[in-house]
Amino acid sequence: MRTSILQLLRENQNEFLSGEWLSSQLGCSRTAVWKHIQTLLDRGYEIEAVRNKGYRLKVFSDAFIEDAVIGQIRAVWPDAAVEFYSSASSTQTLAHRLLETNTAERGIVIADEQTNGKGRLGRSFSSQKGEGIWVSIVMRPNIPVHQMPQLTLVTATAVCKAVREQTGIELTIKWPNDLLLNGKKCCGILTEVQSDPDQVKSMIVGIGLNVNNNDFPEWLFDKATSLSMETGERFDRLQLLAALIYSMETMFSLYEEKGFSVIKPIWEASAESPGANIRARTRERVYEGINRGIDDDGVLLIEKENGEIERLLSADIEKIPDKS
Amino acid sequence: MRTSILQLLRENQNEFLSGEWLSSQLGCSRTAVWKHIQTLLDRGYEIEAVRNKGYRLKVFSDAFIEDAVIGQIRAVWPDAAVEFYSSASSTQTLAHRLLETNTAERGIVIADEQTNGKGRLGRSFSSQKGEGIWVSIVMRPNIPVHQMPQLTLVTATAVCKAVREQTGIELTIKWPNDLLLNGKKCCGILTEVQSDPDQVKSMIVGIGLNVNNNDFPEWLFDKATSLSMETGERFDRLQLLAALIYSMETMFSLYEEKGFSVIKPIWEASAESPGANIRARTRERVYEGINRGIDDDGVLLIEKENGEIERLLSADIEKIPDKS
Repeated sequence: MRTSILQLLRENQNEFLSGEWLSSQLGCSRTAVWKHIQTLLDRGYEIEAVRNKGYRLKVFSDAFIEDAVIGQIRAVWPDAAVEFYSSASSTQTLAHRLLETNTAERGIVIADEQTNGKGRLGRSFSSQKGEGIWVSIVMRPNIPVHQMPQLTLVTATAVCKAVREQTGIELTIKWPNDLLLNGKKCCGILTEVQSDPDQVKSMIVGIGLNVNNNDFPEWLFDKATSLSMETGERFDRLQLLAALIYSMETMFSLYEEKGFSVIKPIWEASAESPGANIRARTRERVYEGINRGIDDDGVLLIEKENGEIERLLSADIEKIPDKS
Repeated sequence: MRTSILQLLRENQNEFLSGEWLSSQLGCSRTAVWKHIQTLLDRGYEIEAVRNKGYRLKVFSDAFIEDAVIGQIRAVWPDAAVEFYSSASSTQTLAHRLLETNTAERGIVIADEQTNGKGRLGRSFSSQKGEGIWVSIVMRPNIPVHQMPQLTLVTATAVCKAVREQTGIELTIKWPNDLLLNGKKCCGILTEVQSDPDQVKSMIVGIGLNVNNNDFPEWLFDKATSLSMETGERFDRLQLLAALIYSMETMFSLYEEKGFSVIKPIWEASAESPGANIRARTRERVYEGINRGIDDDGVLLIEKENGEIERLLSADIEKIPDKS
């Protein structure tokens, strides 16, 4: 109920909504509306109450207040296991714990701030309070183990779609797990999988999307950016969150039903254009050659100087500057 | 120290060991030896102490008392994370928790009894107190994801080797995860994997080996057996445990270094003889045909009536009785 009132106030940000109208919309008494408004005030929302006019959200707010966040999630996933933290060490670590204790088909851990955010290969991930979407999503895709490398690619297409639809911004995908804006990292994806020897049981995919950040630690300055820094606009994180979850749900449904062949062209439409000279570092060695995009399994193809094609499941890639 | 005294008493089960000899072996005072013996008595060991002769273990004991179990494990894996329970719900569930909180290369959870033992596909596994080895082992094999189906097969060869070397008994492997004795199930293996999208991070392999069981619940009577029921002998579970861990270590070292091609002939030497008519149930459907063994990846090959070969990553298989 409180979530529904908040939703209506947010959807009609510039208007006053009367207590009478709200009570009729929600099928409750005006006194009940008044009580819920008091609770929202207590929780930090700035709501104006004017006699004979009604209630209005005073300032634009995408604040991650528990009710609002959970409301956005429940609108897409009514049955998901949800955990919200205003500050957490790492949503990914907490999602592992959630998975151990909860058998729901969908799970989500979200934090307004991560003090110890995790990236790939044990790297850290910067996640400032109130500026981005730091979330770990639990899903249970029904696929055999050899398709695992595709899970990160499907997630990347889902994030690009959500950002495009909510903001009009086109992110590009740097294989396998970074999303760029004007060549700088705007979003990172961390995929972890729990599996039987033949079949995937569940995945925890961490998504860190820089939304309204205006600044980064100095050592990230020429590498990282946010939606806001490249456009000068601020974006509604709550709406982005709902779009992201909806996009994950629809993209993974499509993937499970039709396979990677239908995701591949969507992925390619957002991928950094192939044909560039790249350097790829795996755990074992370094490869150089021309980026030939991905094959039908999602494996990266690199054409080496001798014309041989190297197939990589995972690597850190970077463009090699032209020598001319 | 207490563990070393116990080890010496066990190794010299029929002799009295003098306090003087023990103290010289262990580099401690005779008083210290005496104190440790008192502690062992308190913990349930039946130790005879005779003036002028020394100490002797009164009865053969493979009791899973914490010191003895941990001593056996530490002899092979000095640095492993070890948890022992005289009774636990499921070692596999506890091993998941161990893995979340511990980064040791090797981990092991062992129980003298499981009240809610887990099998494949959420099935239950019967594990009576004091009769078998119920253990979940954490290892971190460095392999790409497509090799995952091999992990159960490598484990099966390791268990067969340990049982053969300790008892002379030849178990046979029923692909993928059961070990049989005279056609009845004597050991079950449950493999679960934690993975990055390209690379295995860790595995938890549960092993339930029926050792000295004399009886089973009625519904298991024609399906299950133990080493003891087929031979009339009792076996030392503590020695079997050490052999099992040593065999896991050496077999996985070989596998990581040389690949599955060197494990395959070892596996085939213990496998149920191919050529039989079998029925294989997967999650999706049922196949019938001739068991053609495994290929170089560890995938089961079934020759169907039309001569086509079906490749299965996982299934429940059973022999089809001859129609003649």
